Amino acid sequence: MKVSFLGLGVMGYPMAGHLAKAGHEVTVYNRTAAKAEKWATEFGGKAAATPKDAAVGQEIVFACVGNDDDLRSITLGDDGAFAGMSEGALFVDHTTASAEVARELGEAAKALNIGFMDAPVSGGQQGAENGALTVMVGGSQAHFDRAAPVIDAFARACTLMGEVGAGQLTKMVNQICIAGLVEALSEGLSFARAAGLDAHKVVDVISKGAAQSWQMENRYKTMLADEFAHGFAVDWMRKDLSICLAEARKNGSALPITAAVDQLYGEVQSMGGGRWDTSSLFARLEAMRQRGGK
Amino acid sequence: MKVSFLGLGVMGYPMAGHLAKAGHEVTVYNRTAAKAEKWATEFGGKAAATPKDAAVGQEIVFACVGNDDDLRSITLGDDGAFAGMSEGALFVDHTTASAEVARELGEAAKALNIGFMDAPVSGGQQGAENGALTVMVGGSQAHFDRAAPVIDAFARACTLMGEVGAGQLTKMVNQICIAGLVEALSEGLSFARAAGLDAHKVVDVISKGAAQSWQMENRYKTMLADEFAHGFAVDWMRKDLSICLAEARKNGSALPITAAVDQLYGEVQSMGGGRWDTSSLFARLEAMRQRGGK
Repeated sequence: MKVSFLGLGVMGYPMAGHLAKAGHEVTVYNRTAAKAEKWATEFGGKAAATPKDAAVGQEIVFACVGNDDDLRSITLGDDGAFAGMSEGALFVDHTTASAEVARELGEAAKALNIGFMDAPVSGGQQGAENGALTVMVGGSQAHFDRAAPVIDAFARACTLMGEVGAGQLTKMVNQICIAGLVEALSEGLSFARAAGLDAHKVVDVISKGAAQSWQMENRYKTMLADEFAHGFAVDWMRKDLSICLAEARKNGSALPITAAVDQLYGEVQSMGGGRWDTSSLFARLEAMRQRGGK
Repeated sequence: MKVSFLGLGVMGYPMAGHLAKAGHEVTVYNRTAAKAEKWATEFGGKAAATPKDAAVGQEIVFACVGNDDDLRSITLGDDGAFAGMSEGALFVDHTTASAEVARELGEAAKALNIGFMDAPVSGGQQGAENGALTVMVGGSQAHFDRAAPVIDAFARACTLMGEVGAGQLTKMVNQICIAGLVEALSEGLSFARAAGLDAHKVVDVISKGAAQSWQMENRYKTMLADEFAHGFAVDWMRKDLSICLAEARKNGSALPITAAVDQLYGEVQSMGGGRWDTSSLFARLEAMRQRGGK
């Protein structure tokens, strides 16, 4: 199939690569053009100069960029993808963005007879590289049925959650569940150390029961080793949490602990840890404890 | 082996039962004597009138009571178990209590040439009934080696964590990891509902990745069904968290989210939910949301 991919960051670069490896004819666009050239050389596709150029003549246009504003800039306006897309073509957005921008772009696309799906992913850089992402989709059943077999190139699972926006809302639930969980784990590990316990042995015992989590199993060793370069960065998590908190104000749900953990992530940023991974909440606790000389 | 069991609550009753079924000669004591009589009839053991009477002539005396004060009252004083135990006998405490009381009783036992181990459990009422508890032990290797084969009657795993007190400290880490995690899950589920998503479908998708937890897998259905009678009660959790927070003041670790969630559990108690299980943090969020008419 003729497709394009807009945005070749740590996620988009390998995702577009999987599309090429699956036999699709892929045209790419990236704000920093050199990266698009590099991708085209590596995977044998084409690099376009603008999102519009990349979108012309494609059946599906994929995107994965930084935030709502980046997303508007590659879709709308004279150089935007929508200006280049044919009627009946489909835009699939893998950015983690607000449900609001998804609905806004969904409406704009509809007016042009273009299809639109919001399809944020989880699984991180490693999931993107291994083609094992979880994709949460908002859109129509017909659009989903058309895109799912193509998305399959980089997904382990792809699920239609509801109307346009429902993919973003599902991703928000994911981030809400993670934020408080990671801080709870961090507090547990920091307490274990302060109490003089062998924290590895503690996790070995408690990870069989009600305290178990993916984060405990996959992150405790690196946390205890002061390694915080295992994927999703604090700066990105704060962007996501700000979307969650804004949406919660609208839908009337209360997120007291999520809001508090967002502030703790702000303190990690103050420590210079904006590029550390989300488990660095532990580094914050340990830095304070060491300052206290305990 | 001749053993006794002090405290026949929802945990102790089935634990003592497993000891009897494993062929041990069990004498029991309970504050409310009728329950001890019932147990003795059901399992064919003896019921004693005081902890001291229950402890006389036993090789190991097990206990599982409510809190530090209950524990002191069954061990110390004229009617306490220590007064009845022979030199060389061993006291194994399964209560979740402070590390301080464990060390205090460890010293008192030592002065009488009695062995002492703190051995709190996780796995809840169901784990006790199925003989599948996780036991976290503080004590000497020699005492552990003597008691472990007997504890095996009701344990899935039994691990020596360090000196007297280390069992309690390990259990505290477990509770710290759970508190923030359950609130994070509750906020995620409440947000999902408020956002109009199918919360079951959301969990189905996100439980494959970084948001996964034992709590998510084992409690989300009952939470969404407004069922909060699945084990460990809020009143008990607050008792445990108060122990964790007191210990953290001493060892210099910071537990900001654990402390905040302890307060949220206090609000669940205010709602009349002291006997609801720990997942009732979700009921608190939903009650507020419904009051808001959203």
